[in-house]
Amino acid sequence: MTGVDLIVVGRHVVPVVPEGAILENHALVITSGVIQDILPADDALAKYTAKEVVRLDEHILMPGMVNAHTHASMTLLRGLADDKPLCNWLMEDIFPTEGKFVSDEFVRDGTLHSAAEMLRSGTTCANEMYFFPDAAIETFEAVGMRALVGQIAVEFPTAYGSGPDDYFTKARAMFAKHKDSKLVKLSVCPHAPYTVSDATFAKVKAISDEFNVRVHLHLHETEGECCDSETKTPSMLCHQSPEKCRPLQNMQRLGILNEKLIAAHMTQLTDAEIDQVAAAGTSVAHCPSSNLKLASGICRVSDLLAKGVNVAIGTDGAASNNTLNMFAEMKLAAILAKAESKECTSVPAATALRMATLNGAKAVGMDHIIGSLEVGKHADIVAVAADSIEMLPMYNAVSHLVYVAGRSTSRMSGSRASAF
Amino acid sequence: MTGVDLIVVGRHVVPVVPEGAILENHALVITSGVIQDILPADDALAKYTAKEVVRLDEHILMPGMVNAHTHASMTLLRGLADDKPLCNWLMEDIFPTEGKFVSDEFVRDGTLHSAAEMLRSGTTCANEMYFFPDAAIETFEAVGMRALVGQIAVEFPTAYGSGPDDYFTKARAMFAKHKDSKLVKLSVCPHAPYTVSDATFAKVKAISDEFNVRVHLHLHETEGECCDSETKTPSMLCHQSPEKCRPLQNMQRLGILNEKLIAAHMTQLTDAEIDQVAAAGTSVAHCPSSNLKLASGICRVSDLLAKGVNVAIGTDGAASNNTLNMFAEMKLAAILAKAESKECTSVPAATALRMATLNGAKAVGMDHIIGSLEVGKHADIVAVAADSIEMLPMYNAVSHLVYVAGRSTSRMSGSRASAF
Repeated sequence: MTGVDLIVVGRHVVPVVPEGAILENHALVITSGVIQDILPADDALAKYTAKEVVRLDEHILMPGMVNAHTHASMTLLRGLADDKPLCNWLMEDIFPTEGKFVSDEFVRDGTLHSAAEMLRSGTTCANEMYFFPDAAIETFEAVGMRALVGQIAVEFPTAYGSGPDDYFTKARAMFAKHKDSKLVKLSVCPHAPYTVSDATFAKVKAISDEFNVRVHLHLHETEGECCDSETKTPSMLCHQSPEKCRPLQNMQRLGILNEKLIAAHMTQLTDAEIDQVAAAGTSVAHCPSSNLKLASGICRVSDLLAKGVNVAIGTDGAASNNTLNMFAEMKLAAILAKAESKECTSVPAATALRMATLNGAKAVGMDHIIGSLEVGKHADIVAVAADSIEMLPMYNAVSHLVYVAGRSTSRMSGSRASAF
Repeated sequence: MTGVDLIVVGRHVVPVVPEGAILENHALVITSGVIQDILPADDALAKYTAKEVVRLDEHILMPGMVNAHTHASMTLLRGLADDKPLCNWLMEDIFPTEGKFVSDEFVRDGTLHSAAEMLRSGTTCANEMYFFPDAAIETFEAVGMRALVGQIAVEFPTAYGSGPDDYFTKARAMFAKHKDSKLVKLSVCPHAPYTVSDATFAKVKAISDEFNVRVHLHLHETEGECCDSETKTPSMLCHQSPEKCRPLQNMQRLGILNEKLIAAHMTQLTDAEIDQVAAAGTSVAHCPSSNLKLASGICRVSDLLAKGVNVAIGTDGAASNNTLNMFAEMKLAAILAKAESKECTSVPAATALRMATLNGAKAVGMDHIIGSLEVGKHADIVAVAADSIEMLPMYNAVSHLVYVAGRSTSRMSGSRASAF
């Protein structure tokens, strides 16, 4: 008998790899927060002696979800304003309110609140973009949740900094201070092509290269963003490249479009641009609720996946969703793709589940340690109760995780084992 | 002091009429299941003496939702098959399984299960279409839930009957047996234009007129349905009208398109057809999750509402959704309409809430007794907890009911007071 820390027995184990697999009555064997073995429960209890055995006989075990695009602190602005166009919503409501209230304390409270909301609904890792990143990083670490955290850089002054140079000075200090964090990785986050100048993007590129960190931004979120970038009289741009090309083209020109880029939204893509994204190895963070609510458009997820693009799923901030519920986002991603492509076979349940887990992990550069339940990966496990009225009957656990499960069914969630 | 049965005090009361109204710290005064008064809580406690006072100091009170299109028993087929086109899904999975298993007992069990799911998530009235309606009616009555129940009529034999004449014989018996039900009203449900002949539609019209009951059917659900009806070599039709016109036109010709019709889905509508529906006074039951999941298309809700059409919201059956969660459906209706119309201002929260409540009540012919919290209406009340991590902070209760609330937040739901 081999000694281990923990054995978790699940009625159904959905490891995500191989895609669509469902292991019945299997056990996850865990030591030091890492999965040592996955095998039938009876075999596990015969082979290993564990300090603790957790039996989840009515549950589906799945990897924790990765929220591939969010602004955690904006949970404090949940429902502040709705039913307005993106530009008005930003300029009239969000930016003025942020200017008045955003602070280290605001980010600490907002991140704590949103981490609780995410963990309670099966998300164990977030791709976070906001101001005062030190507060966010320390909060994610304190609650034991993984994250890729970057601070926003924009052309104009905010409550956090006086302008691009100040943001980059602070970014460098953040990289130095938190480079050894076990749970949190760091990124650089130019807000969007319409709020960041070409000169600032050049500095973003330099920092990304110097520290080998990911770049995370909003890209091709709306038709207006793409049209305005090609005209001389833009309607919503704070900044406009002198190149007068579409933003994706400008990102390519500036060396930003590469395998380290996480491009959120991407609702406006031509066939040629999809090929360009695929060739660059860029990850797309699809945020269907936010895109619908802000009438931004619908991302061509089926075509992106067909070209081999890594498409992950994000909730966006709670100010534009208005929740951080990845179960709802995963379902919407699966069904919206069918309507968008006019093919019921698009994004089947197993693919949606991979997008919400392994593809998210790949986007944030953590697919070697999380995103699936495999030997050698961290035990970031979510248990979804399958014995409720809402979940019964169940013919296929993968279908139910995507089309039926909700935040109310994930009774135990979070990276329990990674607390080791 | 006037004696009453029950006073329910809510932190926020959202009566739906007037649209968008939020009454803070108000009480609903109830006797014999009917709302007698709505007034500030302190005034209510001074003016009335009640057998029972329920204080919901952290809750939003709203009218129970009306699920405007569902097949309750199909909850037993939840997740049986996914990610397939409507025609294949019906012909390969649903119809054969129904043929083998559907019975009085199946409908009794399935309706009980789905009634529990609906009541737990804020739905207190369902527009139900299925076989063995006696079993469904008796089950809804037993659990104290309102419904409009009709039996499906199709051209072919099923587990329930040998063909149209048999279905109508059984429908007449059902009308006679249940005409005095307090909670359940009756309808006639020709399945769809592609499964029902013109001759049978004529009988539907006669029965609807004779018993003054609503007609509830699937209409313009898919592009295929509309295209096939105009061609000579249909791809999915079991039945085709000799008229070779679009189904809506045929319904007009047959006298079915009128104010007693509830047309589910309606994803395929021209401008002229929207005018036609508006002129007829027909209600549309919009089922966004089902329409996306089956790649049927997207209903032009904004245009229908602009023309004054009564658009309600339905979950469809759990086999094609795969839940009966009206909170999720209401949110999706609100955000999908914005993307469809490319206007963020389309279907604002208050409108979505009216669609899920009062418009549904109007569709099923019960808006004089339910659908809003008004004096004289039945006290079918849902209480949504607003003190959870997921619901905080809250700037506007109406926004939160639509964009944030879920089945997990409606702790107390159902037509509690209507048990009187």
